[in-house]
Amino acid sequence: MSTPLHLYDKLLQFTLFQGMSHADLMEVVTHTKIGFHKLPMGKRLISAGEPCNRLTFLINGTLQTEHMADNRAYRIVERLSAPYLPEPERLFGIHQQFTHTYTTLTDVNLITIDKQEVMLLLETQLVFRLNMLNQMATETQRLLHHPWRTCPKSLRERIIHFFFAHCQYPAGPKTFYILMQQLADLLNDSRLDISLALNQMQEDGLLTLHRGRIEIPMIERLLM
Amino acid sequence: MSTPLHLYDKLLQFTLFQGMSHADLMEVVTHTKIGFHKLPMGKRLISAGEPCNRLTFLINGTLQTEHMADNRAYRIVERLSAPYLPEPERLFGIHQQFTHTYTTLTDVNLITIDKQEVMLLLETQLVFRLNMLNQMATETQRLLHHPWRTCPKSLRERIIHFFFAHCQYPAGPKTFYILMQQLADLLNDSRLDISLALNQMQEDGLLTLHRGRIEIPMIERLLM
Repeated sequence: MSTPLHLYDKLLQFTLFQGMSHADLMEVVTHTKIGFHKLPMGKRLISAGEPCNRLTFLINGTLQTEHMADNRAYRIVERLSAPYLPEPERLFGIHQQFTHTYTTLTDVNLITIDKQEVMLLLETQLVFRLNMLNQMATETQRLLHHPWRTCPKSLRERIIHFFFAHCQYPAGPKTFYILMQQLADLLNDSRLDISLALNQMQEDGLLTLHRGRIEIPMIERLLM
Repeated sequence: MSTPLHLYDKLLQFTLFQGMSHADLMEVVTHTKIGFHKLPMGKRLISAGEPCNRLTFLINGTLQTEHMADNRAYRIVERLSAPYLPEPERLFGIHQQFTHTYTTLTDVNLITIDKQEVMLLLETQLVFRLNMLNQMATETQRLLHHPWRTCPKSLRERIIHFFFAHCQYPAGPKTFYILMQQLADLLNDSRLDISLALNQMQEDGLLTLHRGRIEIPMIERLLM
């Protein structure tokens, strides 16, 4: 972590720094106050509701993230591996608090950049500014498009759509702590139909069903 | 439109310029290339799919906007009054094309600022930069929160949720060109139940039903 060259490579893994020239990136590395952190496994990194006043780049290791529905009726647990930047959109806007809880699943290395330094990068670095704007605009465009997409043709497609709509990252293992009755209420279908569809997905080897819990080993396989 | 003072007031109506000091705004007005346009009623202003390479501020008059579902099975028509800035997130990101079509319903006045000039404002004007980032972040946060909200308790609530999810602006008159059967497929319910719920809403004076068309005079009343 000590040499600027090493840091340079680490930052280039993240969209926000991609496309920056060697000279610009060297300027960033030498003039930006950057925090380096190491955390052992099993530690709480961020709690949902905590103010977001910095960007936290996961550069090594794996995090577990958890999010609870507004009515606390169900929650989703995901695994996120480096490189990952959790909730960059929380640095600005009306709700500057994290919405997910993050815990370390392994030893992890993190780089943090305080909002004040991010503001400076946004002012002085054209590519960083463009990357930030493009990243936020792309996310907005993706989300705005959701309601207009072609209607799911089967209950199985509706369930898959529900799973993806509740994930931060569209790949890897996910655990849904949800009762079949809750899923039935959310999807406006019967508990029996939900059970049949989920059991078929279990037979297809896509997930395993437990009491109040659905384990999906690789969510991306649901789209194949 | 000729005096800078008048223009100053017009820009201050828009979030992107709010909070700017008199001095900064005067600098913007004098140093930014700003286009002024007047269009008579009944003219096409923007077509869906057209590249977005400028911000178009509606400063006087009313527009009609139209959006078609991906599968072209239904479309929504809305009325938008000044001050309005259509689809600012389309200036950046992966899809830099408008998704809605805009036509003038009255004579309108517009101010346009090309992307190149917007980039300059983002570089030189701290408040403009912050406003842009905050606006995009807030929109992303609002949209990311959608799947986690409390589940609609009735079909009527589901229908209202569908209406709002397809609107650009959450107030005013809207026309949905959609068949009851399509709405039933989208909401995973029966055509009969949809018909009963919509007819009850018609009796409550919230909307009127026509063949393949639902007229909502003031969508905000559906939340009261």
